[in-house]
Amino acid sequence: MINPFFKNIGPFKISDIINAINLNTEVITDDEKIFDIKDLIKSTKNDITFFHSKKYSNIAYNTKASFCITTENLKNELPKNCKPLIVNNVLLSTSKITSMFYPSSINDNFDNSVKIITETKFKNNVLFGKNVLIGKNVNIGSNCSIGHNTIIEQNVSIGDNCSIGSNTVIRNTIIKNNVNILDNCIIGKHGFGFFPIEGKNLRYPHIGVVLIEDNCEIGCGCTIDRGSMSDTVIGKNTFLDNQIHIAHNVKIGKNSIIAGQVGIAGSSILGENIRIGGQAGISGHLRIGNNVEIAGGSGVIKDIPDNSKVMGYPAKNIKVFLKDN
Amino acid sequence: MINPFFKNIGPFKISDIINAINLNTEVITDDEKIFDIKDLIKSTKNDITFFHSKKYSNIAYNTKASFCITTENLKNELPKNCKPLIVNNVLLSTSKITSMFYPSSINDNFDNSVKIITETKFKNNVLFGKNVLIGKNVNIGSNCSIGHNTIIEQNVSIGDNCSIGSNTVIRNTIIKNNVNILDNCIIGKHGFGFFPIEGKNLRYPHIGVVLIEDNCEIGCGCTIDRGSMSDTVIGKNTFLDNQIHIAHNVKIGKNSIIAGQVGIAGSSILGENIRIGGQAGISGHLRIGNNVEIAGGSGVIKDIPDNSKVMGYPAKNIKVFLKDN
Amino acid sequence: MINPFFKNIGPFKISDIINAINLNTEVITDDEKIFDIKDLIKSTKNDITFFHSKKYSNIAYNTKASFCITTENLKNELPKNCKPLIVNNVLLSTSKITSMFYPSSINDNFDNSVKIITETKFKNNVLFGKNVLIGKNVNIGSNCSIGHNTIIEQNVSIGDNCSIGSNTVIRNTIIKNNVNILDNCIIGKHGFGFFPIEGKNLRYPHIGVVLIEDNCEIGCGCTIDRGSMSDTVIGKNTFLDNQIHIAHNVKIGKNSIIAGQVGIAGSSILGENIRIGGQAGISGHLRIGNNVEIAGGSGVIKDIPDNSKVMGYPAKNIKVFLKDN
Repeated sequence: MINPFFKNIGPFKISDIINAINLNTEVITDDEKIFDIKDLIKSTKNDITFFHSKKYSNIAYNTKASFCITTENLKNELPKNCKPLIVNNVLLSTSKITSMFYPSSINDNFDNSVKIITETKFKNNVLFGKNVLIGKNVNIGSNCSIGHNTIIEQNVSIGDNCSIGSNTVIRNTIIKNNVNILDNCIIGKHGFGFFPIEGKNLRYPHIGVVLIEDNCEIGCGCTIDRGSMSDTVIGKNTFLDNQIHIAHNVKIGKNSIIAGQVGIAGSSILGENIRIGGQAGISGHLRIGNNVEIAGGSGVIKDIPDNSKVMGYPAKNIKVFLKDN
Repeated sequence: MINPFFKNIGPFKISDIINAINLNTEVITDDEKIFDIKDLIKSTKNDITFFHSKKYSNIAYNTKASFCITTENLKNELPKNCKPLIVNNVLLSTSKITSMFYPSSINDNFDNSVKIITETKFKNNVLFGKNVLIGKNVNIGSNCSIGHNTIIEQNVSIGDNCSIGSNTVIRNTIIKNNVNILDNCIIGKHGFGFFPIEGKNLRYPHIGVVLIEDNCEIGCGCTIDRGSMSDTVIGKNTFLDNQIHIAHNVKIGKNSIIAGQVGIAGSSILGENIRIGGQAGISGHLRIGNNVEIAGGSGVIKDIPDNSKVMGYPAKNIKVFLKDN
Repeated sequence: MINPFFKNIGPFKISDIINAINLNTEVITDDEKIFDIKDLIKSTKNDITFFHSKKYSNIAYNTKASFCITTENLKNELPKNCKPLIVNNVLLSTSKITSMFYPSSINDNFDNSVKIITETKFKNNVLFGKNVLIGKNVNIGSNCSIGHNTIIEQNVSIGDNCSIGSNTVIRNTIIKNNVNILDNCIIGKHGFGFFPIEGKNLRYPHIGVVLIEDNCEIGCGCTIDRGSMSDTVIGKNTFLDNQIHIAHNVKIGKNSIIAGQVGIAGSSILGENIRIGGQAGISGHLRIGNNVEIAGGSGVIKDIPDNSKVMGYPAKNIKVFLKDN
């Protein structure tokens, strides 16, 4: 589901790409056209990809990409069809090339293309409040309502029977059917991802979306950031309470219940039927299994297997925690 | 103070109520009319009530209700005037019947009845910003101000000398005198209460209100949910900092001070003159005594007696905590 | 940078000031005019200052102020040019006098002076959304954008190349160049500072501002309160994620990165190049050195020296914490 919304302004000649990351173009013999940047699996011929960690060696070996941003240490893991481009910082170079292809994904300035809903086709089939704004490339299903002052910026798809509250801002988001999003939410902005550089950090592009499956409820004042190279996903029938923060690339399974003020850091993957108590925090890049219960206020800093109940900071087995305390 | 706002569309015949919860109507002999659903204490003749826990036996024994949703184990605690209706899940059946009587309390879709304030009677006696919206059944006292883009939805009573900020949404709320509510608050929406059902959770109705007593201040970005079968109460001269979440049915005593990002889970009752440091969390259904101090970042998971100072997670006596750490 | 915005309505005769704090005017011989209230260092002749803690004795000894609110115990530390006014509660009396000079700093009612941006000079040089409001005494540099429903209240200066999101409220704030402020932020309101008084707390004035230096990014849903007698400062190229609360008088050094839902209590001073993980909290009046890393979820309750990595609650050396847990 990557990138249904951001416009790819490629193709670019490989020489232009190589120049953009300050490499020497001597490595190329034929100045072919490159059509997209994708991950190792999704790339096809005439795409460029990236490979920055040994744990992806198996995938790298089978990539169909024509070029790959990588390091001296990893280059020999690539197949013959894929020419390595050796850099010092794979993610930084990947970011620069992604920005070339998808320049509109870099900033999250307000959407200047919106119109007041009464000037759009939605005025007849949506129940809407005062001052509702709608951007380009928006779809809204039947029997939906949108509250006062809410802004549906560009690149949003809303299914049937959805209720969007007031003072909410949504962009780059796919919302399925029977979803309730309450007031004051910000959904689909870029995540907190950038390269720290003294004096002036460098934003990297976020070309993913937020996907909210059927029957979800998102409480008031929540922020759900869109993915960078993948998507942020809220599974079917998952309910979020107020003031929750879901960072970029997070995936939450179906039938989960998350209480107020919880925060989930970037790229963590949660299973189905999760229960998370209020104010708990989950670090980035973790895997939380199915049917896991995390007590309120806990801080999870490592993977949690299926069917566990954890508590504390760092979170551990709830019985052990309560006995220790 | 239960239910001054939601419209009771009863009475219903007891046979219709029994059908709604899939019981066999053979238990009734006379198909009488039932006028309301209330708790064990407030019910009178021709009301229906509910009884789900042994700890309410004393109250149950004196209920005036004509019918009571309860379990096989508890039914013998009821007086003779009150016929038991035996169910598997008391709260689920209670929820269904409450929804019958108060259907408008189920959803929190935006209030489509609002008017721009300049089209209401308040244009002459309220100081108001741009784009202020006012719903039905709203009262506003003298010397009040309401900031830009703020939405006072239906069922709100505001006393004298109150200041409401900008971008705030209020519904189903009683605000007394000299109260300041700052920007970006959401007050009076339903709480995070529902029955988890695989594939499609079932919301239960929230027929309570939020009551904010004299001289309170509510900081920016706070969410205060209304009660389900009782009210959410902020006591006189209690001040809340920014980004605080107060869940449904919580009651906070007077002269309390609560710092930023605190969260209080549903149905906890706090005494007077409480001090709570930033980011502390309080679990649901607890009793916190008078003059209690809870250090910032603490997680309170059990009742706290009067005059205690606690810290840590789980919160314990502050001297013990600091010595242990 | 104190007080560029709030109007000083002095001078006042010293007899009026003394009456306002319920002292006996017998202490004065000459009813001279007092032009301002400032701290011990900034005061000059014909100013009044305040001195409430022994740790400021060195500074007090050199103050140029004509009068000083202080206590019996501290009065002898003052130089001869400075007449002591002895009170029971220095900060309370200081607050009352500050309110005399700066009455507009007491409340944060919505700014009734704003105009829709199309009626201001900014309509030609700012890219703006729908329903943008601009107050008095606002400056906006070149190449800036302001999103829908955003309110720039009075006393705001915005540099060049800044992007302000939608549904944001800003007042009493100086924003330098290349700053991004995202949606739903509240910046520049008064802090959570007041004197607790049974029945009716007393607000003290906040005459400081918020200063956001070049190249900063402020995430969605953040609240940054202005200073009371000093300023709240976000250093150059510092990035804040979503739902962060920065209390009054906090100062954060340059090149810092602060993850979601962090809270920093009043008057803490943080160095440069700080890293703070999600949901961490920092108590008030602390000093955090340069290059400090604070793990997500930590609670910092004491000063942290330069180059430290801390974790836990209370936060301690990260290696010690992980070994202990």
